Amino acid sequence: MRRTTLSLLAMAAASLNGVAAEEGMWTPEQAPEIARDMKRLGLKLKPEDMADLTGFPMGAIISLGGCSASFVSDQGLVATNHHCVRGSVQYNSTAENNYLDNGFLAQSLGDELPAAPGSRVYVTVGDRDATEDVVGGLAASLSGRDRYQAIEDRTKQLIEECESDPGHRCQVASFYGGASYRLIKRLEIRDVRLVYVPADSIGKYGGDIDNWMWPRHTGDFAFYRAYVAPDGSAADYAEENVPYLPEHVLKVSSGGLKAGDFVMAAGYPGRTSRYRRLGEVHETFDWYYPTWIETAEKRISLIEATAPDGSDARVKYESLLAGLNNYHKNRIGQIKGARRAGLAERRAEHEAKLNAWIAADASRETFAEAVRDLDQLIEEQNAKGRQSFWYDYASGPQLLSAARQLYRLAKEKDKPDSEREPGYQDRDLTRTRQQLTRIDRRFDPAVDRELWLYFLEQYMAQPAEARIAAFDEALGLPAAFDRAALERSLARLYENTDIDDQETRLSWMERQASAFEASDDPFIQLAVALYNDDMAREEDSKNMAGQLQQARASYMQALIAWNADQGLAAYPDANSTLRITYGSVMGGSPMDGLIYEPFTRLEGITAKDTGEAPFNSPSKMLDLIEAGDYADYDLKSIGSVPVNFLSDLDSTGGNSGSATLNARGELVGLLFDGTIESVNSDWDFDPRTTRTIHVDSRYMLWVMEKVDGADRLIDEMQLVKRR
Amino acid sequence: MRRTTLSLLAMAAASLNGVAAEEGMWTPEQAPEIARDMKRLGLKLKPEDMADLTGFPMGAIISLGGCSASFVSDQGLVATNHHCVRGSVQYNSTAENNYLDNGFLAQSLGDELPAAPGSRVYVTVGDRDATEDVVGGLAASLSGRDRYQAIEDRTKQLIEECESDPGHRCQVASFYGGASYRLIKRLEIRDVRLVYVPADSIGKYGGDIDNWMWPRHTGDFAFYRAYVAPDGSAADYAEENVPYLPEHVLKVSSGGLKAGDFVMAAGYPGRTSRYRRLGEVHETFDWYYPTWIETAEKRISLIEATAPDGSDARVKYESLLAGLNNYHKNRIGQIKGARRAGLAERRAEHEAKLNAWIAADASRETFAEAVRDLDQLIEEQNAKGRQSFWYDYASGPQLLSAARQLYRLAKEKDKPDSEREPGYQDRDLTRTRQQLTRIDRRFDPAVDRELWLYFLEQYMAQPAEARIAAFDEALGLPAAFDRAALERSLARLYENTDIDDQETRLSWMERQASAFEASDDPFIQLAVALYNDDMAREEDSKNMAGQLQQARASYMQALIAWNADQGLAAYPDANSTLRITYGSVMGGSPMDGLIYEPFTRLEGITAKDTGEAPFNSPSKMLDLIEAGDYADYDLKSIGSVPVNFLSDLDSTGGNSGSATLNARGELVGLLFDGTIESVNSDWDFDPRTTRTIHVDSRYMLWVMEKVDGADRLIDEMQLVKRR
Repeated sequence: MRRTTLSLLAMAAASLNGVAAEEGMWTPEQAPEIARDMKRLGLKLKPEDMADLTGFPMGAIISLGGCSASFVSDQGLVATNHHCVRGSVQYNSTAENNYLDNGFLAQSLGDELPAAPGSRVYVTVGDRDATEDVVGGLAASLSGRDRYQAIEDRTKQLIEECESDPGHRCQVASFYGGASYRLIKRLEIRDVRLVYVPADSIGKYGGDIDNWMWPRHTGDFAFYRAYVAPDGSAADYAEENVPYLPEHVLKVSSGGLKAGDFVMAAGYPGRTSRYRRLGEVHETFDWYYPTWIETAEKRISLIEATAPDGSDARVKYESLLAGLNNYHKNRIGQIKGARRAGLAERRAEHEAKLNAWIAADASRETFAEAVRDLDQLIEEQNAKGRQSFWYDYASGPQLLSAARQLYRLAKEKDKPDSEREPGYQDRDLTRTRQQLTRIDRRFDPAVDRELWLYFLEQYMAQPAEARIAAFDEALGLPAAFDRAALERSLARLYENTDIDDQETRLSWMERQASAFEASDDPFIQLAVALYNDDMAREEDSKNMAGQLQQARASYMQALIAWNADQGLAAYPDANSTLRITYGSVMGGSPMDGLIYEPFTRLEGITAKDTGEAPFNSPSKMLDLIEAGDYADYDLKSIGSVPVNFLSDLDSTGGNSGSATLNARGELVGLLFDGTIESVNSDWDFDPRTTRTIHVDSRYMLWVMEKVDGADRLIDEMQLVKRR
Repeated sequence: MRRTTLSLLAMAAASLNGVAAEEGMWTPEQAPEIARDMKRLGLKLKPEDMADLTGFPMGAIISLGGCSASFVSDQGLVATNHHCVRGSVQYNSTAENNYLDNGFLAQSLGDELPAAPGSRVYVTVGDRDATEDVVGGLAASLSGRDRYQAIEDRTKQLIEECESDPGHRCQVASFYGGASYRLIKRLEIRDVRLVYVPADSIGKYGGDIDNWMWPRHTGDFAFYRAYVAPDGSAADYAEENVPYLPEHVLKVSSGGLKAGDFVMAAGYPGRTSRYRRLGEVHETFDWYYPTWIETAEKRISLIEATAPDGSDARVKYESLLAGLNNYHKNRIGQIKGARRAGLAERRAEHEAKLNAWIAADASRETFAEAVRDLDQLIEEQNAKGRQSFWYDYASGPQLLSAARQLYRLAKEKDKPDSEREPGYQDRDLTRTRQQLTRIDRRFDPAVDRELWLYFLEQYMAQPAEARIAAFDEALGLPAAFDRAALERSLARLYENTDIDDQETRLSWMERQASAFEASDDPFIQLAVALYNDDMAREEDSKNMAGQLQQARASYMQALIAWNADQGLAAYPDANSTLRITYGSVMGGSPMDGLIYEPFTRLEGITAKDTGEAPFNSPSKMLDLIEAGDYADYDLKSIGSVPVNFLSDLDSTGGNSGSATLNARGELVGLLFDGTIESVNSDWDFDPRTTRTIHVDSRYMLWVMEKVDGADRLIDEMQLVKRR
């Protein structure tokens, strides 16, 4: 079986006929296979060099965990998006030194500030195929639950071996729905420091209003520096630590690009769903997104009402609100985009063609089976998803979640580390502690209770099969929703708990399960009461996951075989591993009658400026623009310094901070967003409307040189002037 | 004095050096003076012919009162906007025959339906200068009140003489702030019938969402027919009436325009403020608009809460809501546009230059005086405006307004007709009756009371000088706002009035003032109680108006003299009289990075379509588009039938329905909107952003021929195929 898979994967990549140049988040290993097309568009590097994760340029591409980044000096200087480091800016800000408002620029190494706790720089040091290790020899007849466990056990084993090398973090990543796996080893740099970040009025210019929008004028860039112990090993923050010396560094282009130029980006896109079945498309677009959008709107209005603008409580929920607003805009955009592009119709057509191809040859009967199995599992999963949707929210208030996580940890700690559930192993405890600490900055009992009441009301309106008896009983839910009564009983929970206190909460990390069972803390009691049901539902979902892995891997093999039969390559869905996307600088037409220009200009900043956030540029910047002081960073064809630009690259969340490279692999900008017309490309790439947004390196350098005086960093980087 | 004015006006128009071609809502009389520029842009007609209001093409240009229109067949067929006739469509719709949803097409003359009561077609038959008649010989020393009265008396006299010709409606229009006047005589056609209107899903496609927006895909066109008595005279609706035979008719172009072509429009723009003083700019943009926007938002949310979607009450307030939303969008757009274009800075600069010019020559001292007088009056007026802002709303609920109007009418009717206040003369009573009737369709006591409470709360929060004692006493307002108490007392007003009944309300039109004074209807009582104060405030405002007329006319003479000194022409602010605006078909860039294409395409309709209003095109239309069935109406350069197009014409509210004409005076479309970036052009024309939106005659004809089968009308019109 494995042989078939691999040979099909090889065949899949063999030819590119018919694949739109722009589509694809390619794994670096695939670089040689897309070489011809990249060269046709203008790539000057040797494509095969790009397959080497530890060579140039990929060796300079790093992950921050959630965001992408790159090394831009031999002293470990890291370029990424402003919005990727903003948490660290917030963490370091005080009323006297508000770095969000004023920006921050370290005048020397010694002035560089520790990033927020948990900040990391991940440098890939190894990457190998691990398909055989993970799924080799697994019998097709295994139950879903057993298959799941086998994969988990083998994965844990691989990670344990890999992480025996201190200072490293390893990951087993699944590609093509579990048809192949790779083991990725990364140096985990734990001393990350804030070097330079422009003020919000530059780095977040346009704010939520311009989020996902074009034209854009956001200086979404900032710099970290990676530090290691004097011996070069990863270490926690210490004064004696020294800058990490990366093996590969990107040169920074001050010449930049013009419309039509080749451009590529390397980073860590999070998740796409390009190979999902029609049943999943329908469930997502016809039920899940609309339902979620409704809950998001309700949550937003509840938070705004319970935590008025300017209140302390509001500060704690700004981050949740921003997230809800962001996804709200995104998902509405996805629904619109799916309608515009005919996602469901196209997917149905695609599946009909696949079916016809399968039916055309009796030897493809196993593929037909895979399709049937997968569709049946999807149907089951959709039903379960709808059933648990409201329960998951109703049982998800912050203190209850914390209590469940803590009790689970106590139970898991009774086992040897290697047998524990992933997320509860020793390697996970630092993150757990950070999560439990963070609650203090994000929790207000009044807001939490309002949201909980809303979720309970919705949960209680569900049919009997969606109700969880253990939950109903533990919470003493009456037959019908009674707001006043429930308000009182929830109030008692908040009044009588101690786990809203950080120290108390963290102290539970050290306790035995029996202590939980003896506790009279109402949230701990709830967690204990829900445990057996939680486990039963987890067993069920693991069984489903095991079955889905098997069915989806088989289905992907069918798809790959079909593609190969047509001479088409296939790239795997995004999974937070390193990918390359390439194409050209280009504007577009998001709709009939409207044209996006490929570049925005400094003068566009002034035109948008109102003096009030998020359109409140520093007056120094406005004066420089007024004076036309471009400092030689201007692009003649647009008559100004380019601020942001568009490309037809294929990107998604997680790509934020990705190095945007020209044909010679020089940094010409940073990828930071996609247009709202692009967001449905997570499901179906539409070359007509998909556009990725970058901040231009010329604008970065102009701001650094003219506005913020960051000469120290400009001098540290290797600038390239040629175009 | 008059001589000076006239000669200055003549000088003003003498030269066009330096005036942007696009700017200007020119009076037809000015056509010869703008001849050279129109010809340079491509006009093929003789410009001097356009000065003749009763010749071709101006003789075909008509007014509907509020909207513009034109004759497009020798059988009195009238082309105008869908949104200009929509009231008539609503008026004729029933649950069984919902013409809003289905559209309406009369299959023969006999099937044409009477338009809504009060619908009119005004055909200009005469127009002459009346400056001497209105202000000739008025002493500069007259008090404001006396000046006002003299102008009113002379105006009424002119109108009375003019209207002695039956079937005609006359108007004395003030130009250049009262520096000149014209007497305009129009045939008032009172039998107006609905001939053809596409469904809302074509004619209102995009609805409020696309209102003021580009790209646009709205089929905003419809047809009325003017009917007269068999002898050709204006007459009320009667079966025996016959189509009016206009002297001049526009040919309709099926060839249309391409980007860059000359284009002009003729219609009746309502109001602009291009010559307002900086003090008025500040008051409007810094106080009035922001305050109004706040009240509009509050009113919208109160109406939406009190009259939920789908309720009967909501139906009654749809029109108010639409108006509030429309102005809300418009005024926010004006504020943004004013900021973007630097309106206040530009106006200040302009005034400084004028001051310098005045100061440069001692003989211009009277101009300096005019500037000082006007600015002082503006300051006074601004203060009065702020003071009365909330009182006007608090004393403006519908039944109270009706009662005040009725009592005033009773008082006025004691005087001979010619001495009555304009608006209360016999010539006005038909409209008064229509207004009083219309209340039934727009009034709900619960909503009215909610709004009233809000206004009262605001009014009561004002300082003592903004309070009206008579009002406070009559309404028994307590010292501090007490919502509950006020709710009860207002409820009693609504319960005990009879004027919410239409018949009762109209019956008061016939009663004597003494009957009002003896009435126990609470709204009538309120009206009587407020009367003396109303009159005192009216006297005051007439005095102010008289002073302002004098000061503004003098100021405009200063401006005109200054312009003339620079060889610049001046056009008067819009005042609902016939104007010509000309320019070219062109897209634009509303902001850095974004480009408006000049045309939209049929395919753009499909792309916007969601199946739900306002994006719910008829499936027949979508099928035709899918099939690419352009019926030879396509424009090759855009590869489709053009739906809407942009031009740099200078237009404003009231221009809706204006005939859009090509270089030969053929109808190439109908003007129906401006882009949101253009709305501040009411105060300051900005050639970079001002764009007017037209529906293309090719789209009109395509819809008529392919979608709605309106062949009868196409046959009736004279089509011109050449481009």
